[in-house]
Amino acid sequence: MAGKSVVDINCDMGESYGVYRLGQDQELLRYVSSVSIACGFHAGDPSVMRETIALARAAKVSIGAHPGYPDLMGFGRRLMQLSPTEVFDAIVYQVGAFLGVAKSLGVAGTHVKAHGALYNLAVSDVVVAQAVAQAVRAVDDQLILVGLANSRLIEAGLAQGLKVSREAFVDRRYQADGSLVPRSHPHALYHSFGEARDQVKEILTTGFVTAITGEKVPVVADTFCVHGEGPHALEFARGMVALVAEQNITLSGLKRL
Amino acid sequence: MAGKSVVDINCDMGESYGVYRLGQDQELLRYVSSVSIACGFHAGDPSVMRETIALARAAKVSIGAHPGYPDLMGFGRRLMQLSPTEVFDAIVYQVGAFLGVAKSLGVAGTHVKAHGALYNLAVSDVVVAQAVAQAVRAVDDQLILVGLANSRLIEAGLAQGLKVSREAFVDRRYQADGSLVPRSHPHALYHSFGEARDQVKEILTTGFVTAITGEKVPVVADTFCVHGEGPHALEFARGMVALVAEQNITLSGLKRL
Amino acid sequence: MAGKSVVDINCDMGESYGVYRLGQDQELLRYVSSVSIACGFHAGDPSVMRETIALARAAKVSIGAHPGYPDLMGFGRRLMQLSPTEVFDAIVYQVGAFLGVAKSLGVAGTHVKAHGALYNLAVSDVVVAQAVAQAVRAVDDQLILVGLANSRLIEAGLAQGLKVSREAFVDRRYQADGSLVPRSHPHALYHSFGEARDQVKEILTTGFVTAITGEKVPVVADTFCVHGEGPHALEFARGMVALVAEQNITLSGLKRL
Amino acid sequence: MAGKSVVDINCDMGESYGVYRLGQDQELLRYVSSVSIACGFHAGDPSVMRETIALARAAKVSIGAHPGYPDLMGFGRRLMQLSPTEVFDAIVYQVGAFLGVAKSLGVAGTHVKAHGALYNLAVSDVVVAQAVAQAVRAVDDQLILVGLANSRLIEAGLAQGLKVSREAFVDRRYQADGSLVPRSHPHALYHSFGEARDQVKEILTTGFVTAITGEKVPVVADTFCVHGEGPHALEFARGMVALVAEQNITLSGLKRL
Repeated sequence: MAGKSVVDINCDMGESYGVYRLGQDQELLRYVSSVSIACGFHAGDPSVMRETIALARAAKVSIGAHPGYPDLMGFGRRLMQLSPTEVFDAIVYQVGAFLGVAKSLGVAGTHVKAHGALYNLAVSDVVVAQAVAQAVRAVDDQLILVGLANSRLIEAGLAQGLKVSREAFVDRRYQADGSLVPRSHPHALYHSFGEARDQVKEILTTGFVTAITGEKVPVVADTFCVHGEGPHALEFARGMVALVAEQNITLSGLKRL
Repeated sequence: MAGKSVVDINCDMGESYGVYRLGQDQELLRYVSSVSIACGFHAGDPSVMRETIALARAAKVSIGAHPGYPDLMGFGRRLMQLSPTEVFDAIVYQVGAFLGVAKSLGVAGTHVKAHGALYNLAVSDVVVAQAVAQAVRAVDDQLILVGLANSRLIEAGLAQGLKVSREAFVDRRYQADGSLVPRSHPHALYHSFGEARDQVKEILTTGFVTAITGEKVPVVADTFCVHGEGPHALEFARGMVALVAEQNITLSGLKRL
Repeated sequence: MAGKSVVDINCDMGESYGVYRLGQDQELLRYVSSVSIACGFHAGDPSVMRETIALARAAKVSIGAHPGYPDLMGFGRRLMQLSPTEVFDAIVYQVGAFLGVAKSLGVAGTHVKAHGALYNLAVSDVVVAQAVAQAVRAVDDQLILVGLANSRLIEAGLAQGLKVSREAFVDRRYQADGSLVPRSHPHALYHSFGEARDQVKEILTTGFVTAITGEKVPVVADTFCVHGEGPHALEFARGMVALVAEQNITLSGLKRL
Repeated sequence: MAGKSVVDINCDMGESYGVYRLGQDQELLRYVSSVSIACGFHAGDPSVMRETIALARAAKVSIGAHPGYPDLMGFGRRLMQLSPTEVFDAIVYQVGAFLGVAKSLGVAGTHVKAHGALYNLAVSDVVVAQAVAQAVRAVDDQLILVGLANSRLIEAGLAQGLKVSREAFVDRRYQADGSLVPRSHPHALYHSFGEARDQVKEILTTGFVTAITGEKVPVVADTFCVHGEGPHALEFARGMVALVAEQNITLSGLKRL
């Protein structure tokens, strides 16, 4: 299969809380085409959500909900053993809150992307993946479900009749089964866009990625995630935009059904 | 001016949290025509919200959002000095979350009623009243704004072009200016429906209330609040339903535009 | 090996929060000899802690800290993947807060017992068990560490030089390896003290328990836990006190070094 | 009365939370002689507290608790209408937690300084001031109570038999009654140490301050507060240290009884 003609670049955003500032939201909005906005459980608060959506609206970038575990102290990165019903309820609540804030600014939300440990669990856990997909469908079945390419979450979204967006990570290496190399591995991460560039180009143009162990693995990516924090966030975002342009691929934000 | 031909009886609900149970929601749903459901800031959590809305749907009762201060420890009863923008944002977020959960169950929300110290502040504080009304309008301008009859909040709602519902309290006495006698006053409360009955009947049939100091004060009430907790909640609710029927007044839940 | 001549009966307590009431603290204090008091993370708040310690002081019952995961919504019953350092810090903080409230009432804390999912994890997870034991020792090395008899936590406490109290559960059945039958098993629980009585008597008088699969397993119990909530809490507590008296065993609260 | 021969320079610290970083703690520790450490209610978490106390220990700086309102979203800067009992309990809890973490690192806490809106309320509200002082005394009567010079809090501390430390603010202007000019006033703040220097010198050497309206007001300051955040934090800290040295005044951290 050939390469992509259209692709999205997304970024997490709105992860500040109260007096605490996190990320370079305003700068990153110049590069990305979609943003996923924290909903107050692992990060974000009602005022930060409003300010972030207003910035994204001004930048004409697609916006989605970025729901996570109710764990501000752990930034949603610590696995929590929620029941499928608790996952469903937590997603419905956060997506609802996000859509309310978006509506108050006259903007329609386009997508939902789970955050952190919940995102990771939904890669492989069929029951949690289903709970996430059902929650999105229950609140608004025109929303796009974003999930790791080849994950159980993408399958669950399709099974629920949702439009999905398959995600690849710009700064992460892959295993032979298509999953990400865990962060604990010494070579899990690319530390500059220069290092990451060949892998991104391979995914974009061939629909495959070379795993850390050498195998060619199919990874069809509708959207690429660049991280919103860290010293290299802007470099990765700029590099991605340049690469996409160089390949004559159209950069386009996620679009709801 | 004559009495009412249609009236609503409302009750706060969904104030449990996690393992903690509060109120007699299921029993009260047999009597009231509208309920206001806590949204997770001062009480309620995503699962409690879903369960409560499902109960209200089964009882064919109108549902609204009951947003409060972000103070679970104080149950939203402690005044917090939020800026008007923070009030606006907190209301938008909570109403959005509520509408999301309601939508996931196929129910439309009908109204918004602020909780506790925020409700009380919006009785007399013009700026906070305006922030609440603007927030409701921003999320969904078809929602009814519930506020104390004669309050600044009702005025703010009308100024924003919202449909309003003027509220009277079944178990509270009134002052000469139409406000409630503060809870700190020894005779602020009626402790049984028997004691409260004459006052409710006066409001229902004449549009006036006799203040604690003897004056006749105009109080037009579209909805009567019975409290959801406490040993006498069911007695008050039953008493109200009987009185309304006896007066040949139609009991009808709040209806969005 | 022979039976016990002295034993403690303990109960969790102080699990109310704000307006929410949980448990029958005052009634249970007539029966138990030690209580473990929630510290504000999974349950309890500063005022509830003070009130509970004051009640326990009046009842001349030993008091300890009952620290849990920072998860009020899940009551500390949902596993959270905290790092060992995060576990250490969470325990130090909560035990410190508890000791501060106890000191303000002129009472010395006697013990620490982890709550819920954290207690369960420390049964089998050596690293978490060590973090809990190190935290207790770091705050006050005269405190007794309470843990399930035969658990990694008891071993970790001994390795840290702490005095330990080995716990048995009155209403739970045991597996052949000395661990509790998981709650998901249909016969995990005894539902009345009548059902539980023989097992408790066996542990008290022989130092063994008959596992659900028939084996005799050594379980030396210094303290028996009766649950603080649920309809049968008082029945279990009363039954335990009667059984202990009948066996001429002295009931005595935990005592710090 | 003549000038001071010994003075303390203090700073708030440990106001990070989870992944969120705030302040320049490590740099400021080179200049100040005492730090007040957030206790998890308005800022700080158990791990941040441990890390901050460890830094302060390495810098040989006195440490105290910095308790605030339970309002992380508002950073403890929003007035909350807590009852005196709730204030007492919140202080006892937070100071206890702080002392526990300090003890786990082998350090003794020296003082307590309330934060933000609670600090400000205790300047003028006699009942709240008393609740704060009683709480400090109840947990540890050897702790120093820090409060604004001339405030009700200082009086309450003395009435409780506590050692007190009278505080002046380096970057704030004063009113004729000895209180601070409210932040809402256009000239409330000095924006550089150069601007603030004359006022600090006047307080240090004469025990008086020139109010914004020209009057000489007695302000005896045992400790000067430099702010821990903001672009000028280090400049103020360095300037204070230089001024104190220039005046041949000894810089010395707070010392418990």
